[in-house]
Amino acid sequence: MNGAESLVHTLLASGVDTCFANPGTSEMHFVAALDRVPGMRCVLGLFEGVVTGAADGYARMAEKPAATLLHCGPGLANALSNIHNARRARSPMVNIVGDHATYHRPWDAPLTSDVEGVARPFSDWLRTGLSARNIAADGAAAVQAARSAPGQIATLILPANTAWEEADDPVAPLPVAAPTAASPQQVETAARLLQRNGSKVVLLLAGAALREEGQRAAWRIASATGAKVMAQMSNARIERGQGRYPIERVPYPVDTALAALAPYATCILVGAKHPVAFFAYPGKPGSLLPEGCEVHVLARPDQDVAAAIEDLADQVAAGTAAPMPNDGPRPTAPGGPITSEGIARTVAALMPENAIIVDEGVTTGRGFFPETHNAPKHDWLQLTGGSIGEGLPLALGASIACPERKVIGLQADGSAMYTLQALWTMAREGCDATIIVFSNRKYAILRQELMNVGANPGRTALDMLDLGNPDLDWVKLAGGMGVEGAVAGDLDRLADLMRQAMARRGPFLIELLVP
Amino acid sequence: MNGAESLVHTLLASGVDTCFANPGTSEMHFVAALDRVPGMRCVLGLFEGVVTGAADGYARMAEKPAATLLHCGPGLANALSNIHNARRARSPMVNIVGDHATYHRPWDAPLTSDVEGVARPFSDWLRTGLSARNIAADGAAAVQAARSAPGQIATLILPANTAWEEADDPVAPLPVAAPTAASPQQVETAARLLQRNGSKVVLLLAGAALREEGQRAAWRIASATGAKVMAQMSNARIERGQGRYPIERVPYPVDTALAALAPYATCILVGAKHPVAFFAYPGKPGSLLPEGCEVHVLARPDQDVAAAIEDLADQVAAGTAAPMPNDGPRPTAPGGPITSEGIARTVAALMPENAIIVDEGVTTGRGFFPETHNAPKHDWLQLTGGSIGEGLPLALGASIACPERKVIGLQADGSAMYTLQALWTMAREGCDATIIVFSNRKYAILRQELMNVGANPGRTALDMLDLGNPDLDWVKLAGGMGVEGAVAGDLDRLADLMRQAMARRGPFLIELLVP
Repeated sequence: MNGAESLVHTLLASGVDTCFANPGTSEMHFVAALDRVPGMRCVLGLFEGVVTGAADGYARMAEKPAATLLHCGPGLANALSNIHNARRARSPMVNIVGDHATYHRPWDAPLTSDVEGVARPFSDWLRTGLSARNIAADGAAAVQAARSAPGQIATLILPANTAWEEADDPVAPLPVAAPTAASPQQVETAARLLQRNGSKVVLLLAGAALREEGQRAAWRIASATGAKVMAQMSNARIERGQGRYPIERVPYPVDTALAALAPYATCILVGAKHPVAFFAYPGKPGSLLPEGCEVHVLARPDQDVAAAIEDLADQVAAGTAAPMPNDGPRPTAPGGPITSEGIARTVAALMPENAIIVDEGVTTGRGFFPETHNAPKHDWLQLTGGSIGEGLPLALGASIACPERKVIGLQADGSAMYTLQALWTMAREGCDATIIVFSNRKYAILRQELMNVGANPGRTALDMLDLGNPDLDWVKLAGGMGVEGAVAGDLDRLADLMRQAMARRGPFLIELLVP
Repeated sequence: MNGAESLVHTLLASGVDTCFANPGTSEMHFVAALDRVPGMRCVLGLFEGVVTGAADGYARMAEKPAATLLHCGPGLANALSNIHNARRARSPMVNIVGDHATYHRPWDAPLTSDVEGVARPFSDWLRTGLSARNIAADGAAAVQAARSAPGQIATLILPANTAWEEADDPVAPLPVAAPTAASPQQVETAARLLQRNGSKVVLLLAGAALREEGQRAAWRIASATGAKVMAQMSNARIERGQGRYPIERVPYPVDTALAALAPYATCILVGAKHPVAFFAYPGKPGSLLPEGCEVHVLARPDQDVAAAIEDLADQVAAGTAAPMPNDGPRPTAPGGPITSEGIARTVAALMPENAIIVDEGVTTGRGFFPETHNAPKHDWLQLTGGSIGEGLPLALGASIACPERKVIGLQADGSAMYTLQALWTMAREGCDATIIVFSNRKYAILRQELMNVGANPGRTALDMLDLGNPDLDWVKLAGGMGVEGAVAGDLDRLADLMRQAMARRGPFLIELLVP
């Protein structure tokens, strides 16, 4: 057995059975091992950002890491942006990065680079396998690291000779510790703050607290104490829809966010971070909390967030029933001209139960959340790290994890262009994904930001933010990668196309001409 | 004047007047400055790898650096692969990377990352601008570093407040030293080796030695001493065609390369590096030179390579005339079924004088070189760093540098998919570029490598190297980005389409169905 085979066996034994890959020459022994060792599902991406974004989407839905297979330092570099997003989502991921044979590095062949240096800024765990005899143990350690709470990025560099040289047997999985419980003090202090400040308290939820059970506990607390419940700005996964709770998120625009959080004297972080402005702006604060607001950590992201919110609910809302969840009527498709709210109502009206919504709607998506509270039950996945170009790969990965669920991508056009190669993999894998591209033909968010700069922008600046001239034709782009598509110029046509797309399986793209 | 304005003024004063950009929020003050300070040509790319690959192509042809404008650590990460290639081409480049305001970093907002850590593995010069008052000086130093021989990657990180805060006047350009001359000993030793070993010597050329004058000197030496002249395997730019010399390159396949270099007892490096295998293979050597081969450095890449080869020619071939350059008949378009040599002959037959050929042909391109010796004069640009996905951006950048010259991209399909967004910028900028995509619908080079691994590959492995299922449709992909295209299934049709493309201006894509 060679090193690659012992590594593949070990990954499988450790529960990693899906590999998103964009291999090169130095990974050929690993690829050959995938033939010899049955059980690993391999998904090819034509660009590395597709591979890692898909691994992120997979992890969010499968609740376990996928492996990625990447080629040398530059291939890893192409993968980093979505590794960054995955890390901010606290998704577990095991990156296998092939590199030159150890003894070939001194020659400084063209593809030579400082692979560890490339990996370091975005990896929680990083190791170069130096011997085929140890590579199975390295692989088991990588999976252990990835699965450690709250989910980590583990990067294992695999020199080619470490893959092809003779190895020992695979190793058994290493134990993964359960997340640490929040301390009694963390819970008791939160309870005291709620009892003292009541409606002046905001509970800020993230991570496991945004699953149905966590939200129910939070709403019990809110109902008993008058506290406010919010989700942080960007979240890996929120369980939403009828029978769940109408949770709002911290808004993106700084002034709106400051206003939303202004009423609170106390902020209790439930797996969330201190809420901050996405960017700094001249003369505006970095923290989104009002001055003097007291911040208390009920549970850090690496602690058992779900248990902590339950414990807190038991302390401050013992014996009280959960409040009424979303029970309003399901929205109907409004038809007519395109608005952000109208898109949301159309999607809410027509999506099937148990859909996975991947939201990289950026500017167009600002109005989506409130209008979809009363949609059927669904999961909502967001861009967590702010590096645009993850929506299509996330949709791909979520679909690989949950092939029986409909995936709906709400996708800004500028963002989609970074990783449009994901469409090809969707076609190849027969992903049941409907992608709605918001074709406004500009970096709309940047136009707003440019206006915020206070300048009176001229032609040069505006040209930098304009995706027209020429217009992108998304139906052609999708067709070029084997995905059928159609254009909608208003919400009636969007509804027609949505109905068709929901009635079939497989990938479909709707180019929505957003004014 | 704010920091961004003082920086733009300084870049312009330092001779940097072209900026390839994919900006984000933290760069909005820089973008606004581009309006207020006239003179910077801005070219938008829809993905960062397009931006840096284009800056590389620009630098190779314009012989000076372009600026790039990139957004935070993840945006820089997307740019790294082609920065790697540019660095291996020794292209000068000035990367401006926007980041959070210095005082916002402690908040760890979603896009926060270790930007210096991201830049370091691929930057020769790296600095974070910490004050608007100093940013002009930082910019001048970045350009100075980029222009230092033989061409360097300079990365200047620009925190948002450094761009928007009040700054002083721009600064004057900093001096750039000419490359150091090779020492008399370097030249004399080379002369002695040539006189002693004659036909057992190979002169390995790179960099400036591959311009017309350098090659003429090398061929004078060869003619007088019996030495062999070769170019290194991958080169930033070779001047070729009728009236120039029929230079061969070190081949890519290891066994072929070993055979080509086996006859030589002495290797004289003329701006080139010691020739090595692109990858290591079990049981094969890393060095491509025969055992015991003596290696002598006539000129390092950072020395004055052109002067050194002239000096050497004057020593060993004084008074002799240059040998006959390429003077055979121009190839004719062969028609018929598609072969690597046939593609090359078709291109050689139909390209205009002074074309720029961008070769990312990979497997299909192996036979291109010999068949194009007798084409009209042209420049030949290669992928230098081995990270595929630079061909389309290189073609874009070369066209921006030389708008009056026809650019012809010889482009593998798998490689093209990494940075296909370059087509959109070609359409927008009206680049006079004809791209021939070799649609073999597989990573053909990897299939060869997999066979070399000695395995009998099965379905899983082969699927990882297969770009069919579904087939990419390059005419639709190009059309989706505003570039007209057509399909050729044989060399007759290729010739027809080439004639049409050569007779018009603007971008055009030919999908060549390579068996």
